[in-house]
Amino acid sequence: MALKKKPVTGMKDILPEEMVIRDYMIRLIKETYATFGFSSIETPCVEHIENLSSKQGGENEKLIFKILKRGEKLKLAEAKEEADLVDGGLRYDLTVPLSRYYANHANELPAPFKALQMGNVWRADRPQRGRYRQFMQCDIDILGEPTILAEIELITATTTLLGKLDFHNFTIRINDRRILKAMAAYSGFAPESFDTVFIILDKMDKIGLEGVRSELISEGFAEESVNKYLELFAQVTPDAQGVAFCREKLEGFLDAQYADDLMIIMNSVDQIKGADFKLAFDPTLVRGMSYYTGPIFEISMDEYGGSVGGGGRYDEMIGKFTGQSTCACGFSIGFERIVMLLMERGFKVPGSSRKVALLVEKNMPADKMITVLSEAKALRDEGVQTTVAVMKKNKKFQKDQMTAEGYTEFKEYYVDRM
Amino acid sequence: MALKKKPVTGMKDILPEEMVIRDYMIRLIKETYATFGFSSIETPCVEHIENLSSKQGGENEKLIFKILKRGEKLKLAEAKEEADLVDGGLRYDLTVPLSRYYANHANELPAPFKALQMGNVWRADRPQRGRYRQFMQCDIDILGEPTILAEIELITATTTLLGKLDFHNFTIRINDRRILKAMAAYSGFAPESFDTVFIILDKMDKIGLEGVRSELISEGFAEESVNKYLELFAQVTPDAQGVAFCREKLEGFLDAQYADDLMIIMNSVDQIKGADFKLAFDPTLVRGMSYYTGPIFEISMDEYGGSVGGGGRYDEMIGKFTGQSTCACGFSIGFERIVMLLMERGFKVPGSSRKVALLVEKNMPADKMITVLSEAKALRDEGVQTTVAVMKKNKKFQKDQMTAEGYTEFKEYYVDRM
Repeated sequence: MALKKKPVTGMKDILPEEMVIRDYMIRLIKETYATFGFSSIETPCVEHIENLSSKQGGENEKLIFKILKRGEKLKLAEAKEEADLVDGGLRYDLTVPLSRYYANHANELPAPFKALQMGNVWRADRPQRGRYRQFMQCDIDILGEPTILAEIELITATTTLLGKLDFHNFTIRINDRRILKAMAAYSGFAPESFDTVFIILDKMDKIGLEGVRSELISEGFAEESVNKYLELFAQVTPDAQGVAFCREKLEGFLDAQYADDLMIIMNSVDQIKGADFKLAFDPTLVRGMSYYTGPIFEISMDEYGGSVGGGGRYDEMIGKFTGQSTCACGFSIGFERIVMLLMERGFKVPGSSRKVALLVEKNMPADKMITVLSEAKALRDEGVQTTVAVMKKNKKFQKDQMTAEGYTEFKEYYVDRM
Repeated sequence: MALKKKPVTGMKDILPEEMVIRDYMIRLIKETYATFGFSSIETPCVEHIENLSSKQGGENEKLIFKILKRGEKLKLAEAKEEADLVDGGLRYDLTVPLSRYYANHANELPAPFKALQMGNVWRADRPQRGRYRQFMQCDIDILGEPTILAEIELITATTTLLGKLDFHNFTIRINDRRILKAMAAYSGFAPESFDTVFIILDKMDKIGLEGVRSELISEGFAEESVNKYLELFAQVTPDAQGVAFCREKLEGFLDAQYADDLMIIMNSVDQIKGADFKLAFDPTLVRGMSYYTGPIFEISMDEYGGSVGGGGRYDEMIGKFTGQSTCACGFSIGFERIVMLLMERGFKVPGSSRKVALLVEKNMPADKMITVLSEAKALRDEGVQTTVAVMKKNKKFQKDQMTAEGYTEFKEYYVDRM
């Protein structure tokens, strides 16, 4: 029987060229985050379907790859709906599994706990160019740290990593969900309409101030509120002074401490930064997930239109899951997007570029072959990438191909010259 | 809603302590195999259900985690059997996906192609101690190399890796499926009964020669054949001389070339070996999968009862899948078993053990905090694992806990002493 040759819809095979970059990134991420005291952890790719369907995953819950029950548990004839057939699903993010992991192991883990997770997640999204149904996520989270030390450490670790990957001139946009809410409250929007307002506000960078205005109006919001709201955005500057402006303007709607904290985060990160990036206060930054409770942040790169990572504080989520209140803050980088950007740039992984091919004439007798293999051993022991290959008829073509693969040196061995 | 705290049945959460070993192993494996010229590749964890059910996977095909169709494709009311409901499954090994990958990308890959795959596979096995339903596999394969250079390189690469992981005194047991068959044919067994004979032979190390004898007899095989067969095993020595004995004894049943090749493999690997291990010819070695066509090998360690890895030549499998004949040979190490052995040994990952904790008094003002963060930055820039933590009330307890986590140095910062 012939095999289906293509991968399943929306997922991809990874070729050696891309793997070199991925492997390098994984190593650099693990090394860099380790210096910040993050510990690697891992959860199974399969998660209880109940945990995946607990409403914390938002839209992602519609995109679950579900796993059929097995053996006697699968009662096909009696099944009335999908839920009767499945008991698991592939995780769609690393946050839900982290919550479960922490609930299961809190006693064995330090407090606060600094976790690094790198792993695949799956979403049955409509396939589109550059977006895959299986992709790597890379999250750092600090659980149990209530102070802004968590935010400062997360942003510093992430920007240090990006700097090591040779990214410059990117921007960390930063906001606070409580400032976001205070601006809406100050303008006269009712709390129950905040989500609608924020979904529209989130489009600011695409449709501009006037676009947001007309969408809010057509949504039926009072013109007075809309005007008051948009005037705020026109006045706020994208820096710590913008935060100070909000602190003053939103008095009565915003606890001044939140603004002060945000200014300290921005100021601290800026003073100790080791990479070349900008920090910007962006009061239009919403971040999709409603579980965020405090500061939120996102990485913007000019090279890439959208966001290449983001995160924020989510103090209530783990408690909702586990019954035990645990403050938490996380930062996720868009691993696949960064791989893509590095590939597009023609990024070369640093390190030794010496690669040796030992080409052996066909039917080399065993005793002479030992000489070649010993030479390969000596090179490999020094860490040099070495391959032993049987010489082909068209040796020039063979060497050209191997050169394209990255081989830099060739040695040839002939039966009668050994 | 409270979350289910335990992982799904048969799968496990990995704690930081184990992850340190896993991450180290992954790095060492990638580095070591790279020096042998193997290229990393990756396939999706989800595979077409047709590919997984193509009869190449043997018993593993009964253990597939199947994935429900999604959206309009799922016709629950019309479904008559399981197959109507699923379109994918989690891969149960890395060999079937490798065949698909090679069929899909042969034109983009060098010939021969040396592939390294590390990735999770899933099998819905009965849960038992130390065996999990999600586990990491680590395979190297050489596709398109017909000569025994493939076997020599695979065994040398694998044993070099094990040596770097500080394993000694392990044994590589080696045989050839064609010697296995020739011994059975020589003894008078009919080809169609070979599989039955081999399943019994495979138990030799558990039930001994007499156990094998009585099982073969009770299976109804002629006593003459059984006696002739077992006499062979009693005569063969576990070394190259044993192969030479087979070469002579099995004349007419075995192409002498196969025996010569096996002797050259054994001799070459032995002469260039960089680790401390034994090579043994083991004519009772069967290897479960029927797709093997030539030399087969397995790693035995006294520390661990069973096999910790194995492989062999499977020249016909890829062709069956792809329609294009491609010779292939692979070696897989039991990643999880090796992790387990290292954990049991109390293995410590080599490298810098300096870990610094900067403990900061509560409510440290922002300007003084910068001093601490800058110090953390300087240490991290040097590659030192550094964490900044808020001082707890019970500072002694906090430091004891961090010491247990591996922190070796503490610095304390007080508001009024800065």
